[in-house]
Amino acid sequence: MLSTMQDVPLTVSRILTHGSTVHGKAQVITWTGEAEPHRRTFAEIGRRAAQLAHALRDTLGVAAEERVGTLMWNNSEHMEAYLGIPSMGAVLHTLNLRLPAEQLAWIINHAEDRVVLVNGTLIPLLAPLLPQLPTVAHVVVVGPGDRTPLADAHAQVHDYEELLAGRPEHYDWPEIDEREAAALCYTSGTTGEPKGVLYSHRSLYLHSLQVNTAEAFALGSRDIALPVVPMFHVNAWGLPHAAFMAGASLLMPDRFLQPAPLAEMIETIRPTIGAAVPTIWQGLLAELDAHKRDVACLHTVVIGGSACPPALMRGFQERHGIRVVHAWGMTETSPLGCVSHPPAGVDDEEEWAYRATQGRFPASVEARLIGPAGEELPRDGTAAGELEVRGPWIAGAYYGGAQGALLRPEDKFSPDGWLRTGDVGTITPDGYLTLTDRAKDVIKSGGEWISSVELENHLMAHPGVAEAAVVAVPDEKWGERPLATVVLTDGSAITYEELRAFLGERIARWQLPERWAVIPSVPKTSVGKFDKKVLRRQYADGELDVTLLS
Amino acid sequence: MLSTMQDVPLTVSRILTHGSTVHGKAQVITWTGEAEPHRRTFAEIGRRAAQLAHALRDTLGVAAEERVGTLMWNNSEHMEAYLGIPSMGAVLHTLNLRLPAEQLAWIINHAEDRVVLVNGTLIPLLAPLLPQLPTVAHVVVVGPGDRTPLADAHAQVHDYEELLAGRPEHYDWPEIDEREAAALCYTSGTTGEPKGVLYSHRSLYLHSLQVNTAEAFALGSRDIALPVVPMFHVNAWGLPHAAFMAGASLLMPDRFLQPAPLAEMIETIRPTIGAAVPTIWQGLLAELDAHKRDVACLHTVVIGGSACPPALMRGFQERHGIRVVHAWGMTETSPLGCVSHPPAGVDDEEEWAYRATQGRFPASVEARLIGPAGEELPRDGTAAGELEVRGPWIAGAYYGGAQGALLRPEDKFSPDGWLRTGDVGTITPDGYLTLTDRAKDVIKSGGEWISSVELENHLMAHPGVAEAAVVAVPDEKWGERPLATVVLTDGSAITYEELRAFLGERIARWQLPERWAVIPSVPKTSVGKFDKKVLRRQYADGELDVTLLS
Repeated sequence: MLSTMQDVPLTVSRILTHGSTVHGKAQVITWTGEAEPHRRTFAEIGRRAAQLAHALRDTLGVAAEERVGTLMWNNSEHMEAYLGIPSMGAVLHTLNLRLPAEQLAWIINHAEDRVVLVNGTLIPLLAPLLPQLPTVAHVVVVGPGDRTPLADAHAQVHDYEELLAGRPEHYDWPEIDEREAAALCYTSGTTGEPKGVLYSHRSLYLHSLQVNTAEAFALGSRDIALPVVPMFHVNAWGLPHAAFMAGASLLMPDRFLQPAPLAEMIETIRPTIGAAVPTIWQGLLAELDAHKRDVACLHTVVIGGSACPPALMRGFQERHGIRVVHAWGMTETSPLGCVSHPPAGVDDEEEWAYRATQGRFPASVEARLIGPAGEELPRDGTAAGELEVRGPWIAGAYYGGAQGALLRPEDKFSPDGWLRTGDVGTITPDGYLTLTDRAKDVIKSGGEWISSVELENHLMAHPGVAEAAVVAVPDEKWGERPLATVVLTDGSAITYEELRAFLGERIARWQLPERWAVIPSVPKTSVGKFDKKVLRRQYADGELDVTLLS
Repeated sequence: MLSTMQDVPLTVSRILTHGSTVHGKAQVITWTGEAEPHRRTFAEIGRRAAQLAHALRDTLGVAAEERVGTLMWNNSEHMEAYLGIPSMGAVLHTLNLRLPAEQLAWIINHAEDRVVLVNGTLIPLLAPLLPQLPTVAHVVVVGPGDRTPLADAHAQVHDYEELLAGRPEHYDWPEIDEREAAALCYTSGTTGEPKGVLYSHRSLYLHSLQVNTAEAFALGSRDIALPVVPMFHVNAWGLPHAAFMAGASLLMPDRFLQPAPLAEMIETIRPTIGAAVPTIWQGLLAELDAHKRDVACLHTVVIGGSACPPALMRGFQERHGIRVVHAWGMTETSPLGCVSHPPAGVDDEEEWAYRATQGRFPASVEARLIGPAGEELPRDGTAAGELEVRGPWIAGAYYGGAQGALLRPEDKFSPDGWLRTGDVGTITPDGYLTLTDRAKDVIKSGGEWISSVELENHLMAHPGVAEAAVVAVPDEKWGERPLATVVLTDGSAITYEELRAFLGERIARWQLPERWAVIPSVPKTSVGKFDKKVLRRQYADGELDVTLLS
């Protein structure tokens, strides 16, 4: 029996219209590096988003479903694109300006972007790629920057402000099915080709509601949100949409992501909530420790993207009065994910333990842990399995390109449609997730899992070991077994037997590695992570000097 | 282009499963009037909701879409029904125990309830009606109470606990289309027959998310919510679903709605947020003023249902440290509606002015003001029009009964499907709604509206006037004109000319009434409101002694 409720879709245009009318006085404040930041009200953003849509449709010929790329920093023009492009029925494609050039080109070609909006300061990044981008018919330059590198481009070059000037400030936004695509973001693709996640109007809307709940980031109209996390990185974790929905002003750092300008903009504009990856906050903490500033306006700092060192959380809280909230998510999860608010009624020590976890899932994200044999594991805080999630803002496939069907690789989606996160961890009876490993880094030994990260942490705690990397290697009897590779500290004369005995006091006997090798250094990826692919290949090729302990 | 996101419905069973697992330790605490309240964890509620669903399906034969009525106070068994009945695909029909008997019978028959859950203490209300309720095949008695009045009932009588005992504690909840009906609530029907609003799984879910946002009531897992507003009154304003979703514990007052037990349960259980109509809070304020208690745990008190006297808001805040939040909604709006949080950066006096308004709408409720000629009015804080609303948790029709089509009366729904609220008011440029009149109480004079409430308030401010009621009467030239009826204070010798001159200093000349009558008292309804129907009839029948001023 159908209900009697109205059938009104959840769309980005509703967020845009609401924010620009009911919260028309709220502001997007963009840092400029000069004395005065740039300010634009939500009402102005609304009018300019309409002008942008008119320009894209009437002059650039952008039709519904076509992709419009943005190669931009966090600023108010990016906000106009964020809201205006999906509202007109086109698809906002945020481009990661930190990707290698060939990957960026691959992504733009895969998405078949017809238009790219580019900040003037990023022209040097885009211009050399353009000859390889046949679908890009228009480049729209936003803000100052030397345009000469675009002189010979096959694409037409426009100035953003000239394009908008004189257009109608109202657009009759089409009523869009909420399941239609609104925005496109590619995973960074550390393994294989990048994969595109197409967010829907529905998923962005529901995610925004969630961000604004008390159990997440609780954005309200009295807040000023500072998304240091880039708008090309999973929708800046949903903050732009959520803030516009709640009437929270936004402080946009543009390209000023260094500790000193961040500290200055926080002290000057007084945001109440900020979000960034640990490295950014680490830099800011060092800056604040060195040059004391009044930053107590920031009641909440959200840290995600990778696990947050406890010392960082304590440093912010104890030395600067800022509460750090741990969150977990990924491109495929919009990205929330978990948020780690401790439960009521715990003491100080327990509170810190809870805050070190990835946190609890909201109602809209169903989670399960899957063990090595494909069985669902209990939530007992001990059983470790691969995390799988399901929900209205969780990806169920990847974009197959304009001509292709949706992609559902087996290693990414379960047969019943859940997302395989590739993360391994535990969930406590009261719902707190703790991630311990990437699934590709656990060793599947005789139907049980051995955590390489746990072994490495124990080994690196030994004074004779500088670095340790544990990888899975094939084993006839057990399927896989751990290979421990260690870098010794200068002058260390520790033996494998001693190391194994040291480990034996800390982990179960069946988890102890038989295979050991001393290496001069652990191979690293370009961003400094252990490159275990190299170690596995070296082992397979017999390049390592492996000792087998009986 | 469809997105790549998972297609997961928003359902009550998701709220139930989430709350009873991730927040399994949260509690529903029911006041019993005895030393110890009754406590049940969300995990237990989840298990018992499953048992209830098994009992309803297997023993009572309840099929999908069938209506199950609840004639119950706010307590943990009602919570089990709230979550279990919609989750199994049936429709929860909350019955208003304050309705006149014949209206209650009409509603149960219209809904064709097959089962009624009744609190033992409410058997005296239900038993006499049963002979008139042919569809009710089963009565399930919850909690203690004398059952002899049910002895001769045609329906089978069951004990709730016996019905649940031994059933499986897990139910494989069906995956339900989110637009399907989940719950049914009838408007109280002060004019015409009661009208049924069928909430969907989608509307309840989205509404719960909204309740938990910072701009609404910000419920989180550290909160304890006290819904004094009954669960048969528009889903207790959404608090039970929202609390279960957020992991906020619930303090349920059962039948102890008097000021003294309310004060005691607040001091003992320490809820953080409460919701009720003004008369309840008025009684509590008087109680707290007379018998001081520590109630500062309540950081927020939500007042809705009718306009809140400013003295009540100030009394709670200034004498007891409790912030009162004004909210507006109705059965047809789920009920949120507006919530009045003042904007940032206003001074104390402005803050109180904002808090006296009905507040701002959330993104999911679109609003417009419609003037006398059907035109949309500006949001300038001055132009007064009838409020119309649109959104995913706003009714677009009424339930037409099992055999009937949905009802869309013209006076309730606009041709383009918006709900006509029947309320008249203004909206400021920054989005704050102030309601001034019911639409049926405004006088449509020559294409303009005259507020009867405004005229009455001015007249009653005159020392010679005890009461005043202004009603619309037909006028050949203007369509309608105001008739002012006044009750004079003892010994008052004020003339109509003097009263008109008094009004003339306060309102526009064209709004001044020509027709005047002194009456002995204003006719009242059973709940003490001015009964303007009677006055209009008396005027039409020539029963009033009307003087026409030229």
